[in-house]
Amino acid sequence: MKNLTLKDIAAALNISVTTVSKALKNYPDVSVKTKERVKEYAEKVNFTPNSFAAYLRTHESKTIGIVIPRLNHYFFSSILRGIISEAEKHEYMTFILCSEESYELEKVQIQRLLSKNVDGIFLSIADKTHDLAHIQNIMDNGTNLVIFDKYSKLTPCSSIVIDDRKAAYSAVKHLINKGKKRIAHFRGPLLPQNSIDRFLGYKQALEDHDIKYDKNLVFICDEISDSEGFDHAQNILDQKLDVDAIFAVADLPAIGAIKCLLENHIEIPNQIAVMGFSNWMISSLITPSLSTIDQPGELMGRKAFKVFLEERDTKKRNEPVVFQKYEIETSLVERKST
Amino acid sequence: MKNLTLKDIAAALNISVTTVSKALKNYPDVSVKTKERVKEYAEKVNFTPNSFAAYLRTHESKTIGIVIPRLNHYFFSSILRGIISEAEKHEYMTFILCSEESYELEKVQIQRLLSKNVDGIFLSIADKTHDLAHIQNIMDNGTNLVIFDKYSKLTPCSSIVIDDRKAAYSAVKHLINKGKKRIAHFRGPLLPQNSIDRFLGYKQALEDHDIKYDKNLVFICDEISDSEGFDHAQNILDQKLDVDAIFAVADLPAIGAIKCLLENHIEIPNQIAVMGFSNWMISSLITPSLSTIDQPGELMGRKAFKVFLEERDTKKRNEPVVFQKYEIETSLVERKST
Repeated sequence: MKNLTLKDIAAALNISVTTVSKALKNYPDVSVKTKERVKEYAEKVNFTPNSFAAYLRTHESKTIGIVIPRLNHYFFSSILRGIISEAEKHEYMTFILCSEESYELEKVQIQRLLSKNVDGIFLSIADKTHDLAHIQNIMDNGTNLVIFDKYSKLTPCSSIVIDDRKAAYSAVKHLINKGKKRIAHFRGPLLPQNSIDRFLGYKQALEDHDIKYDKNLVFICDEISDSEGFDHAQNILDQKLDVDAIFAVADLPAIGAIKCLLENHIEIPNQIAVMGFSNWMISSLITPSLSTIDQPGELMGRKAFKVFLEERDTKKRNEPVVFQKYEIETSLVERKST
Repeated sequence: MKNLTLKDIAAALNISVTTVSKALKNYPDVSVKTKERVKEYAEKVNFTPNSFAAYLRTHESKTIGIVIPRLNHYFFSSILRGIISEAEKHEYMTFILCSEESYELEKVQIQRLLSKNVDGIFLSIADKTHDLAHIQNIMDNGTNLVIFDKYSKLTPCSSIVIDDRKAAYSAVKHLINKGKKRIAHFRGPLLPQNSIDRFLGYKQALEDHDIKYDKNLVFICDEISDSEGFDHAQNILDQKLDVDAIFAVADLPAIGAIKCLLENHIEIPNQIAVMGFSNWMISSLITPSLSTIDQPGELMGRKAFKVFLEERDTKKRNEPVVFQKYEIETSLVERKST
């Protein structure tokens, strides 16, 4: 039954190919009876319209590609769900590729998507990406591009982000409001903008509340993992650093810190409060539950797809596309760890 | 620069199209110097070989499609990672679609993949799927199909599974070895085979150790969620049921149960032990950490792709494909909850 064509259906039903095509597309100039006959037959023989033929006709592949830095990652899974669910509503199919936070792999994945003639690319930039020529290539190729979460100020395209600096500021302010004064920060790697902005928000909140910034209370989580959080917390305890709260760049290091504090019989939040960032499902399930910043991944994904559609339509009308940075609101979720 | 063809490169370099094509594929009958010239130029103009042209030549699209029941799901994410990483090694690109556990949507997604001429489909059957004609259609269409995790005994294709019954048996035996005798089971929905098999393993382990099966100790988790686990545990406490252990069909209901027991100041594992299934990342991060069955998702994904490749090659040699059920070994992970 492979490669059954409109022609085969036309021959079987003894009508013209045009009629079959129009019937399947529900054109008004085909009788209801004929439409029913064609659709019944197409269903019976399990006819699948060939999408390559459709591509040749419309020059749209009705496919998009997403490149994310990590696959096993709750936040990125939420974004994927947002993009995919919107894409499905508009009959787009989605390729998913992973850069594994590598610049080289990100370049390869983008080339592969371009070779598949995708109509749009959705990208969260890898931590290791230090050059943006491959991203410029997407634009030069005429392919729509939307960047989400980890963006760069230098890319000429629209982006869907949160205000990391403001969100981090509100997290640290929350700790200060709880009476905390010696707040450690478990920050992310040095390169990505979101890691920089969260750090800057932390610093700003301290300064605005007359708390002196102490660089000895800042620890780097290169992998943004729970074990790094655990180790840094252990380090604080071993060094007997004067710390009454921890603000982590993401939930996993915060959860690692909680695990360490519990093992050392430190009272949370009385002795040391802990604040995460992102609101992974896990943060509500641990004991004590983790206060965090809710980063609405699914919403960001939906917005990213909508921006792609708008820009696609603007191009079709031969109008210039104006790139924008869309900021999605975050909110503070207070739980037992603060 | 869109739609640049081999012809354009040939014209620019004043050589034949065949030479360009051969140079890009590294054929031995083109001089090293010419190859270098072509490759340098192709790189300079950011040439992307057109994959539709490749499809017309080989009748392979070098794409595969995965249909999973849920996107925000740790275990399925692990399987995706396994399939995608193997697929990338062999230069396949991956469509990801979600059935949301719905039979109707599963049918639609499979049709969409067939319309894209994917070379292979990887499917975990939705909980609500009660009829398999759409799965038979994949085979009739000549498209390779591999089923993983949630399979049906009735589908004529290879499957990558674990021995759910044996794994559940070992989990319950572990609880019995710890001296537990009144073991509740938080089971999954009635339809999927893995939920049935885990229940049967539970029952068998009780019988083999002379513990009477008590249907009042079996609770259904339709959504396999933490809140169902929480509610069932609360129910056990409210009804003052004589229970000294809980074996849950998956980690999330087990984690919900732990949360409920902690809130009610029940000692884990002394008063009630808790055992999960799947070994999600979260199970090692909660306190007390959760004993569970490790279900190696990434390994299952890798195996699924390898089986697809083998069957593809068998077909190419015009030999009959012999479908097999591949069982991946699980292991018991003992942590603090037992």
